[in-house]
Amino acid sequence: MSTFVIIGGDAAGMSAASKAKRDDPDLDVIVFEAGEWVSYGACGLPYYVKGEIQSLEDLVSITPEEFREQRDIDLRMSHEVVAIDPNDRTVTARGESEVVVEYDHLLVSTGAAAVEPPIDGLDRDGVYTLSSMSDGKDLREYVGRARTEGTLNQPDSGPACRFLDDCNGPVGIVGGGYIGIEMAEALAGNGFEVHLFQRGERILKSFSEATSDAILDHLGEQDVAVNLNAEVEALAGGDGVEAVVTVDGRTPVEMVLVGTGVSPRTDLAEDAGIELGATGAIAADAYRETSHPDIYAAGDCAEAEHVVTGEPAYVPLALTANRHGRAVGRTVAGTPTEGGGIAGTAAVKAFDREAARTGVLDHQRARRVGFDPITETIDAKSRAGYYPGGSTVGVTLTADRDSGRVLGGSLVAEYGEGAVHRSHALVGAVTEGIGLGELSNYDLAYAPPFNTTWDPVLTAAKVLDGNR
Amino acid sequence: MSTFVIIGGDAAGMSAASKAKRDDPDLDVIVFEAGEWVSYGACGLPYYVKGEIQSLEDLVSITPEEFREQRDIDLRMSHEVVAIDPNDRTVTARGESEVVVEYDHLLVSTGAAAVEPPIDGLDRDGVYTLSSMSDGKDLREYVGRARTEGTLNQPDSGPACRFLDDCNGPVGIVGGGYIGIEMAEALAGNGFEVHLFQRGERILKSFSEATSDAILDHLGEQDVAVNLNAEVEALAGGDGVEAVVTVDGRTPVEMVLVGTGVSPRTDLAEDAGIELGATGAIAADAYRETSHPDIYAAGDCAEAEHVVTGEPAYVPLALTANRHGRAVGRTVAGTPTEGGGIAGTAAVKAFDREAARTGVLDHQRARRVGFDPITETIDAKSRAGYYPGGSTVGVTLTADRDSGRVLGGSLVAEYGEGAVHRSHALVGAVTEGIGLGELSNYDLAYAPPFNTTWDPVLTAAKVLDGNR
Repeated sequence: MSTFVIIGGDAAGMSAASKAKRDDPDLDVIVFEAGEWVSYGACGLPYYVKGEIQSLEDLVSITPEEFREQRDIDLRMSHEVVAIDPNDRTVTARGESEVVVEYDHLLVSTGAAAVEPPIDGLDRDGVYTLSSMSDGKDLREYVGRARTEGTLNQPDSGPACRFLDDCNGPVGIVGGGYIGIEMAEALAGNGFEVHLFQRGERILKSFSEATSDAILDHLGEQDVAVNLNAEVEALAGGDGVEAVVTVDGRTPVEMVLVGTGVSPRTDLAEDAGIELGATGAIAADAYRETSHPDIYAAGDCAEAEHVVTGEPAYVPLALTANRHGRAVGRTVAGTPTEGGGIAGTAAVKAFDREAARTGVLDHQRARRVGFDPITETIDAKSRAGYYPGGSTVGVTLTADRDSGRVLGGSLVAEYGEGAVHRSHALVGAVTEGIGLGELSNYDLAYAPPFNTTWDPVLTAAKVLDGNR
Repeated sequence: MSTFVIIGGDAAGMSAASKAKRDDPDLDVIVFEAGEWVSYGACGLPYYVKGEIQSLEDLVSITPEEFREQRDIDLRMSHEVVAIDPNDRTVTARGESEVVVEYDHLLVSTGAAAVEPPIDGLDRDGVYTLSSMSDGKDLREYVGRARTEGTLNQPDSGPACRFLDDCNGPVGIVGGGYIGIEMAEALAGNGFEVHLFQRGERILKSFSEATSDAILDHLGEQDVAVNLNAEVEALAGGDGVEAVVTVDGRTPVEMVLVGTGVSPRTDLAEDAGIELGATGAIAADAYRETSHPDIYAAGDCAEAEHVVTGEPAYVPLALTANRHGRAVGRTVAGTPTEGGGIAGTAAVKAFDREAARTGVLDHQRARRVGFDPITETIDAKSRAGYYPGGSTVGVTLTADRDSGRVLGGSLVAEYGEGAVHRSHALVGAVTEGIGLGELSNYDLAYAPPFNTTWDPVLTAAKVLDGNR
């Protein structure tokens, strides 16, 4: 009987554990999880804070008991792995006592931690991040307290109320990525006056400029105060945070959410001599095997090959973690399985709008790997012009001028009008290296309640192809 | 100066005219249209009948005046072409008088006509089809009269009222394809008691069985009486229709909509010696050129190559007409352009559900071209399980057992939950010959308001791949 040890019991780890055990029931599968939760949907935390999800337990897809009893996985919670010894093929973990286990196969799925930006005052009371279940719990409690003790607003009573006297807050959000924007929705939806600070000149900077602008406009419509080019210098106050300080001045706040990204947890791997890649995350081959035989890495602690550039990229997201974990599980169970590359695909809902992006939109990055990028944005309708309802769909495409190869895309529309699901077509195109001409000839589904005869994706491909 | 003559002024014809003239303004472009409308969205007619679109003119994307004045196209309405002479390179048309024009390039885009099934009584008053603008006008007038003169129901007041005393109708629909189903929505939405008769054992027979069943269930929820295996023998009555007669008996009706498909209008082409293909529609090569040099065919009168089977197929739909027309326009203007194949993609809204299908789902057809087809259907959630709202998404995939190549797919969900837009990913897969393993590794967009971590499309691919 061989032993498969897994460090970290979230998406990658539990996917690997479940798949390995299902494919090879004789395998001994041990999972060490440092915290108190496994297999949870961290992506749902903003909606828990908002109040749209009632219980933290709702975010758990499979409980520890189910893993243990139904899937026969030796899951050890509150066990922190403190060392990997690749020579002895052992892992040392600390729970109530210290245990050393031997492994035949090892998966490092230690995840990522919220980045601590170089800002004074991060340790003041009222400063939060949102990367763990306990972060979510703390934030929900804060929202609940503010609504009970503060001047009350009903949740979801409409736009945030920064021009009204009876607002909650004000509160600050540092960072204009997904977390910042989802939390703006969560807090504004609870009646907080929200001030968002973004260091660069636009929010959602991995999306196209047109998409960023469309979401920015909508945040304005929802009375979120967005400060661009706003490098936060300090979170001022006493014990508790009282103001966000930038070069432009002080914005009084009662609470701050810092959402400036995450960085891979690589200490354990580094200490064991496992190689990190150019991105600073753990390097792994197509099978997710690291520099050390039988040691795999998957999830937010690892990098992966980008399908467009062929270069390693660090894009810590849930699907990749699940997919790579599952691939490792299959491999360990005897069927060598590639984890697949990443396209840098992402989706976000911002109040009543939705957006998605995939592939390479950044011209500098495209040039670095030998492309001659061109970009075009079109605005089209999400349904036939004569059909009731619908919205504008903005589609940005980037392609290589010479070959016409689609490199990346970004879409935005009203929520429910299919910007995100339409991006699925572009993921295929960037993954397979499809040309604009070929894409524009795709026989996509059409009926008036769903799109114009040429779906916006096709129109964008035609227009950009015409510009080559 | 060379002359481009186009027979038929709908999607294919006007796309060709516009593109040719834009790319080569020196070209003399003449369009003969037999009827009184050009460039209209026939796909919108059910929604005009329903009352969601106010005016027939709303379905016209570009008016005759715009074609003439802004695009400098010599558009001749109410001109029926009666002969093509490929030797003299002339076309003879009858308007107020007869004209003969010479062409350098000719496009046959004569469209399709509603099939007249072998049913007695099709000529009775109150029997309608829906393939032209005048059909739409007649049906809207009927609905209006019934609502004014008959026992009134408010439109969209909920399910059709077949169990109530104050229903409009009853009315019959012959045919359970898109038109039949869209018209069931249109008529039930106006308070009619609707009886739908489908010859075969399921509706939407080009979709997967699971999709057909999901739509069938929903029609039942909406109080549409669907009769399967119901071959209609006669539409009985006096001057006006009074009953739909099948072997099972008579169903009293005040009106009947016959929607049993369309057949290509090929008479003109046949008379000129232009070859038809195996499907009975006009044959054309990748550039849409027919058996005769400089004579092209596009739109509902022509067949096209299927991207999966490589065989000719006849799937008369709007996007193909637009795309093939545009390709002919470019070719005629000097840039030889392939029109692209077809995947048999289709979408339909049925009350509060939506469905799409693409590629080859039929096992017999797949076997005929050398595949060993396997099929699986999964039911997944349209959003994260913990996220509010959403519905089930049913995904059926068919693939080749040996290679894993995706051959076809069919999806169904509540309206707005992305069955149709998700099908875009499958169109790419069937067009490019992607395998299940590769598809299931796609880095599709994920966030809780839009899907589960593994989008239902990915889950279906994983499950079917596991069954090989």
